[in-house]
Amino acid sequence: MPAPWITYRPELKVLDCTIRDGGLINSHQFDDGFVRAVYQACVDAGIDYMEMGYKASKRLAAKDQFGCWKFCDEDDLRRVVGDNPTPLKLSAMADAGKTDWRTDILPKKQSVLDVIRVAFYVHQVSEAVDMIKDAVDKGYEATANLMAVSRATELEIAQCLELLAETPASTIVVVDSFGSLYAEQIEILVKKYLEYARPSGKQVGIHAHNNQQLAFANTIEAIIHGANRADATMFGLGRGAGNCPMELLIGFLRNPKFRIRPIYQVLQDYLLPLSRQVEWGPYVQYMITGQLNQHPRSAMAARASDRRDSYVEFYDKLITEE
Amino acid sequence: MPAPWITYRPELKVLDCTIRDGGLINSHQFDDGFVRAVYQACVDAGIDYMEMGYKASKRLAAKDQFGCWKFCDEDDLRRVVGDNPTPLKLSAMADAGKTDWRTDILPKKQSVLDVIRVAFYVHQVSEAVDMIKDAVDKGYEATANLMAVSRATELEIAQCLELLAETPASTIVVVDSFGSLYAEQIEILVKKYLEYARPSGKQVGIHAHNNQQLAFANTIEAIIHGANRADATMFGLGRGAGNCPMELLIGFLRNPKFRIRPIYQVLQDYLLPLSRQVEWGPYVQYMITGQLNQHPRSAMAARASDRRDSYVEFYDKLITEE
Repeated sequence: MPAPWITYRPELKVLDCTIRDGGLINSHQFDDGFVRAVYQACVDAGIDYMEMGYKASKRLAAKDQFGCWKFCDEDDLRRVVGDNPTPLKLSAMADAGKTDWRTDILPKKQSVLDVIRVAFYVHQVSEAVDMIKDAVDKGYEATANLMAVSRATELEIAQCLELLAETPASTIVVVDSFGSLYAEQIEILVKKYLEYARPSGKQVGIHAHNNQQLAFANTIEAIIHGANRADATMFGLGRGAGNCPMELLIGFLRNPKFRIRPIYQVLQDYLLPLSRQVEWGPYVQYMITGQLNQHPRSAMAARASDRRDSYVEFYDKLITEE
Repeated sequence: MPAPWITYRPELKVLDCTIRDGGLINSHQFDDGFVRAVYQACVDAGIDYMEMGYKASKRLAAKDQFGCWKFCDEDDLRRVVGDNPTPLKLSAMADAGKTDWRTDILPKKQSVLDVIRVAFYVHQVSEAVDMIKDAVDKGYEATANLMAVSRATELEIAQCLELLAETPASTIVVVDSFGSLYAEQIEILVKKYLEYARPSGKQVGIHAHNNQQLAFANTIEAIIHGANRADATMFGLGRGAGNCPMELLIGFLRNPKFRIRPIYQVLQDYLLPLSRQVEWGPYVQYMITGQLNQHPRSAMAARASDRRDSYVEFYDKLITEE
């Protein structure tokens, strides 16, 4: 039997989405020093991709209410990464329905970005297909991130995969937005995604949330079943329960190109201090929304209220509403 | 393919070891109200077993330096549970080398305990065999908990299992003392344990630690591969990184005999307040000892020191000592 915890698969690539997913808990208001520290840690740790933020529409999101990482304007990116003279590839996420992608995503030759990750729900797949084509036409690598897959039916998923297989996307990502999936469901989804991805030369990725303390375990599970793209964040930073912690993922992977010490350094110097100002992690309310396969918004509201310690009240409310 | 997250296995039984494993972080000094609340939550939640503490030798451990749950004297037990007129079975853990088991473990008819769980390292297996026989002779159910299995060789494990298969133990437990095992290793161990346990009519159990945020995931993994006894603790309370959280395990299991609401209640009323006085959970230092397959004692020392935030220093120290 293979022992993947001893050896490694060279094709496996890791994406850091600390700033992008983490931006959802502080309105993307990271200062340059923080972003630069995460960038440098990614470079030093041998991580393959770093996601800098969103390409949100300025018509829909007022620029003065959010930090610049919601928009990833070229000037803001270059202020931190310069021309990015490193092997680390940079990505931005573009949400279907929330991005002026025709105008705001520049031709690749004018951008320091390498990858556009297109995020969408089942009902937005047609726009996502157009966005992927547009990004690839402009010179980027593009990925397809079908969100909230735990709420989609098998038929919906299959139809999306059929459409996505025909796009020039490099990767289709299994996204457990609500942190509700167990390992066996991850296995089923990864295998299903691979059925469509492999024949068209695409990779499958995994993006897990930590509501049930399964983000790392499910990421390993996806890797074992053939996912070659894994998302993680420093200290598990991310909305609500957070994401797969990079420090756990890199500790697991055995490719000697990865180095874990720079990750401990940025945890110590930047993430730990941040954790004293803003909360994320697998708190009980997030666990409950994960168990119930719900969006974490009710849990975020409860955590932000003065009823944050009233677990039973929260549970009763959600169960009654089900 | 079976869908164990939809249905359930009636043979599967859950053991709460909140007071026993949790006692390792506060010298077993729980007040009666706390123990009674956990006991009542177990009864109300439909949990099968509750472990009340250790049967430690009073020659080796001074009674005035520890709470009574290190010794589980009959008077102390009955002060909380009376004659335990409930379906909840009660256990105590007896460590090889640290228990005056011949005298301190009373005949079952004089005790409110139902189960003696014998904990031991590889080199103590002979005493463990005697302890198991003694407990069963006295009228108890007995289990064999081979600790720190991640540091034992396959040959050692096989030899222990061979000996244990011949004892009257009801259960042999896979114990990941250092929280270092990944799901695939859990699978291999559970299958190996079952090879020896099944022919002699024994069950296999799982006791996981949360150093790498894998305690719940590994518990599920063990269950999927045939473990029918699962340990967990309220809020994941336990030494160092803690254990598999009961609230996650019960949320996963689909047997309608289990009820999760009483667990949220005890979390809210007792465990959350405790978490403000004493620390446990998958902090970075515990993750590092887990990744390195080491006893968590260096991590506990670091967390208790004024260098608790110096992750890199801790990592460098451990790597140098390796």
